[in-house]
Amino acid sequence: MAATLKDVAALAGVSRSAVSRTYTKGASVSAKTREKVQRAADNLGYRPNALASSLTTGRTKMIGLVSNNFHNPIFLQVFDLFTKSLQERGLRPLLVNLTDETDPQNSVQMLRQYSVDGVIVASSTLPESFAEAFRTAGMPVVHSFGRHVVKPKVNILGIDNIQAGRLAAETLVARGYRSVAFLGGPKAATSTQDRMSGFLTALKDHPDVTVTTSFARQYAFDAGRSEMLRLINEGPLAEAYFCGDDVLSIGALSALTSQGIKTPDDVGIIGLNDMEMAGWDNINLTTIHNPIAQIISSSVDSVADLVADHTLSPQAQLFACHIVERGTLRPILRF
Amino acid sequence: MAATLKDVAALAGVSRSAVSRTYTKGASVSAKTREKVQRAADNLGYRPNALASSLTTGRTKMIGLVSNNFHNPIFLQVFDLFTKSLQERGLRPLLVNLTDETDPQNSVQMLRQYSVDGVIVASSTLPESFAEAFRTAGMPVVHSFGRHVVKPKVNILGIDNIQAGRLAAETLVARGYRSVAFLGGPKAATSTQDRMSGFLTALKDHPDVTVTTSFARQYAFDAGRSEMLRLINEGPLAEAYFCGDDVLSIGALSALTSQGIKTPDDVGIIGLNDMEMAGWDNINLTTIHNPIAQIISSSVDSVADLVADHTLSPQAQLFACHIVERGTLRPILRF
Repeated sequence: MAATLKDVAALAGVSRSAVSRTYTKGASVSAKTREKVQRAADNLGYRPNALASSLTTGRTKMIGLVSNNFHNPIFLQVFDLFTKSLQERGLRPLLVNLTDETDPQNSVQMLRQYSVDGVIVASSTLPESFAEAFRTAGMPVVHSFGRHVVKPKVNILGIDNIQAGRLAAETLVARGYRSVAFLGGPKAATSTQDRMSGFLTALKDHPDVTVTTSFARQYAFDAGRSEMLRLINEGPLAEAYFCGDDVLSIGALSALTSQGIKTPDDVGIIGLNDMEMAGWDNINLTTIHNPIAQIISSSVDSVADLVADHTLSPQAQLFACHIVERGTLRPILRF
Repeated sequence: MAATLKDVAALAGVSRSAVSRTYTKGASVSAKTREKVQRAADNLGYRPNALASSLTTGRTKMIGLVSNNFHNPIFLQVFDLFTKSLQERGLRPLLVNLTDETDPQNSVQMLRQYSVDGVIVASSTLPESFAEAFRTAGMPVVHSFGRHVVKPKVNILGIDNIQAGRLAAETLVARGYRSVAFLGGPKAATSTQDRMSGFLTALKDHPDVTVTTSFARQYAFDAGRSEMLRLINEGPLAEAYFCGDDVLSIGALSALTSQGIKTPDDVGIIGLNDMEMAGWDNINLTTIHNPIAQIISSSVDSVADLVADHTLSPQAQLFACHIVERGTLRPILRF
């Protein structure tokens, strides 16, 4: 059986309250008592219980990790990086699956019940109202992969999706594509809206390039595949597609291949994220790299800072993205 | 601000202890007091804090969810199903990432600090010693996807990997393959050992069929790809491969394609798991279906039963698997 506070108090010959104060940050306890307690605790292999300590420290060292997409393989990387990064700081992720959840108040109530020290919303599709509802409820919150705004209501960390859309447009134009299209994620997602807006804005400088847009119902393989099949059926196709993210790109590639349409010879594809699978040899997707490792490690720093000081003002942190050249676009034209 | 126990006591005109007793299972409180407290709580939108209640109930309603592979896409499905299934029961998953962890005691200490009600080890590669260490430490534990044994030391839920190996062998023989091979996962994993043992045992009934074996360093795309590239280099290849799981199969397929070797015309591949991606049109993998949804829902039932009654004896629960025909094996021979 694990040693308890009571056991330590008995062995050290001090009161339970003295043991408790020894493990409470800022509590008063004499050097002599502290030494007795620590010797007894070492002897018994005693570790103070994080949840019991939370009653005195007000900290549970738990962070709510909120996600709503378990069909996009990039989230396996996201969970891996978040759990490692939190564990390295002695924090623990309480994983919250918000697939199909529409009311932020349910999540607020749930995370409040668990007294998490803070919340990380890891999603580019959950409305801002979720992160804001956590903040309104008094929880330190960070929205990773959220929409960049100049005066954010909560901490936002991610890429500038408008800039990423511009980058996609310029990449396609530089390769000589003259009819291009945006095959976006869910229409209501800020990531979809911003990627499209940057894409269309950049193309205004190229009036000779025609552009069309359409949307998949979620960031998932099946959604990208069925939307591309619909486009093939409808015809004619654009020369190149900027897909809302990598998993949509892989779905679109699957649809093209199934209809005997070759990439990049017949149709070009560029994705966004650069998830592990994009580099797999049988996918080999040209894409825009989303620096998720840096975003995640900064998100954990950011939530820890907020936990330490609730009065910090919300900030937006932007991360640069860049093209990763692989096999799904024709080579750049050199004159 | 959220209403506290103190607020409820003040509004109800009762002591704080009376409020606490109202929300403590089995505690004594008069019907009249209970009614006053509940009316005040409803008025204030008060919810008892799960962690504060845990001090009286001894239950935190948190379950440690332990995993060690974040590079195998099937784990995204596993996390989705576990989080949903736990949430439906009012339980919360505390996600623990044990990539690279070798000492079970570190995990025991960590989960004990958080007073989780129980632990689910979701891994076919973590040694049995992890689940057993949790049990020895007095935590209700379930090992999902663990090795089937007749007298298990902890609750085990999963497929019979020996039987799955037999099924793979019989499937290949029925399709007329006369030289077959096992390309397994990590050699030390019980899932690798058992799948291989069933495969080799079934082939003893077919002395005309030759068999070879080799291993990938982990259940991951790169590992399957590099092992298949090594086999291609070494030559000659077998006519068909039973790969340890789907992600290894996809890696192996990528290696074959990159060398101009066609599936199923030149080499057949059969996987195991039937994860979402196996059905993607540009993968289309023939595989053995692992009923992970049933295993996960039964695992959650099982850990909840153990939390309610720590004295239940450990049991092994076996789930049937079956072949899913897709495009990576030649058709069955009919005489």
